[in-house]
Amino acid sequence: MTARIGFIGLGIMGRPMALNLIKRGHRLAVFARRAEAMVPLTDAGAIACDSPAAVAREADITFTMLSDTPDVEAVILGSGAKAERAVIAGAAPGSIVVDMSTISPAATRAIAERLGAAGVSMLDAPVSGGDVGARDGTLSIMVGGPQAAFLRVKPLFEAMGRNIGHIGAAGAGQVCKACNQIVVGQTIAGVGEALLMAQAAGVDAAKVREALLGGFAASRILELHGQRMLDGDYTPGFKLALYQKDLRLVQEAAHALGLALPGTALVAQLVNALVGHGDGELDAAALHLVQRRLNARGDERA
Amino acid sequence: MTARIGFIGLGIMGRPMALNLIKRGHRLAVFARRAEAMVPLTDAGAIACDSPAAVAREADITFTMLSDTPDVEAVILGSGAKAERAVIAGAAPGSIVVDMSTISPAATRAIAERLGAAGVSMLDAPVSGGDVGARDGTLSIMVGGPQAAFLRVKPLFEAMGRNIGHIGAAGAGQVCKACNQIVVGQTIAGVGEALLMAQAAGVDAAKVREALLGGFAASRILELHGQRMLDGDYTPGFKLALYQKDLRLVQEAAHALGLALPGTALVAQLVNALVGHGDGELDAAALHLVQRRLNARGDERA
Repeated sequence: MTARIGFIGLGIMGRPMALNLIKRGHRLAVFARRAEAMVPLTDAGAIACDSPAAVAREADITFTMLSDTPDVEAVILGSGAKAERAVIAGAAPGSIVVDMSTISPAATRAIAERLGAAGVSMLDAPVSGGDVGARDGTLSIMVGGPQAAFLRVKPLFEAMGRNIGHIGAAGAGQVCKACNQIVVGQTIAGVGEALLMAQAAGVDAAKVREALLGGFAASRILELHGQRMLDGDYTPGFKLALYQKDLRLVQEAAHALGLALPGTALVAQLVNALVGHGDGELDAAALHLVQRRLNARGDERA
Repeated sequence: MTARIGFIGLGIMGRPMALNLIKRGHRLAVFARRAEAMVPLTDAGAIACDSPAAVAREADITFTMLSDTPDVEAVILGSGAKAERAVIAGAAPGSIVVDMSTISPAATRAIAERLGAAGVSMLDAPVSGGDVGARDGTLSIMVGGPQAAFLRVKPLFEAMGRNIGHIGAAGAGQVCKACNQIVVGQTIAGVGEALLMAQAAGVDAAKVREALLGGFAASRILELHGQRMLDGDYTPGFKLALYQKDLRLVQEAAHALGLALPGTALVAQLVNALVGHGDGELDAAALHLVQRRLNARGDERA
């Protein structure tokens, strides 16, 4: 069965994800603020709409893939004169809205409640895996929301990703993504400090990475980011500017919960320094650069 | 060919390692400060000696597995009236001393020089994998020192471990172990903060761990320590008291090199608090406990 699908937000992530749905034979209605962003999709057979509401009217399942919390609130709920252009104005009772953006868990629960009152189910389904994962259809997808909606959307998730987990109720997908970013930051920091120690002590850091991969310190980050640090190749991958945003979301959630996360706080400070230094377009592995700057020697002195 | 082997230090790590050498058919001369520690070894056929020097006289290759830097200096080099009881007083030119303790890289290089002046080669070969790895012969072994000595000792390492890496010159094994402990600490901290966030947000932390294992946040620590944190099972494994010692060595090395490792410093502070709280005998995964105490709720208030 091919579903009537909507897709809103066709940037570096949304575009390849929507294209993967089209490749599986699904009919897509799309919307993007910039009309030219829709061209690659309409070229592939998608129908261009003039508002999020119009997309939702054409769709049983409407996906959003946007930058941040206010964008998702505006597109799904709208406000004031623009309320009639929002998804909620077009979505029929019984339809499903699936937000794949990375945004606030608390805002997600509020949006899910508003949609629920209109008879519309919501899933939060943030991803990890970056634009490469989006293109290759190998994203990890962390899903919150009702089980019935999850089961209906699962075949579509499988067109976009490989590791698809239903974590819990509304907001649980966003919480899981926050947890992912907490782990990732401190693991990168640990790998970076270890390679710095090896180099400062005059030991071949590549051999240290290799030895550590065989033991208890092994991680995908040691494998992939460790190699990027050794090569000094910080082509993204996943950009520091986006990681800074995700860490802001983690810290906002921690603030709201009254939760102290000192390790995450330290990583966030290092990421702030990098973005301030103009490194926001580099891969998250470039966290190592601020560790190196902190320990600059001799001719590296500013 | 069975080598004439010496083994000094028969504690929780040294005893099973020495037994694994005996099982491969090697002849062992042993010494331990506490005579009763030698009994399981002599029962298995080892020859008890009355000093480290006596062990070295019986051996082509002498292993040491001791607690800390001063112990290794005392056993291998000795000082004052005890100098004649030290390994260096008994080791023949052409023999090899293999220190498998975790100690200072700088002190290791100094010991290697002293032994070298006496015609004795030294390898530093600290391990990771804890007492379970020692018993099962599955330790990771990180080796520094001359290539020729490494090749001679390699078959013996293979009786004790599985991942055996020759990292570089004298001290490189200890530097690699320091790097291992740097990575391990921050990875545990990241996993612990993530599970804390999940629980505080009312999300099933076990499902979060499972989802994260499928993606970029995957690590052996998320797998093993993540599960220990969920179970609240902190049976060692690798004890916090020993980890505190290893972090002291890392920080001493960083001090000597003029190297700032802020992530490691934070982990070291958390470990200090745990050991001060009386948790030194728990597994290193218990780092999560101090994160929980910091965020204690309601009836957990002291």
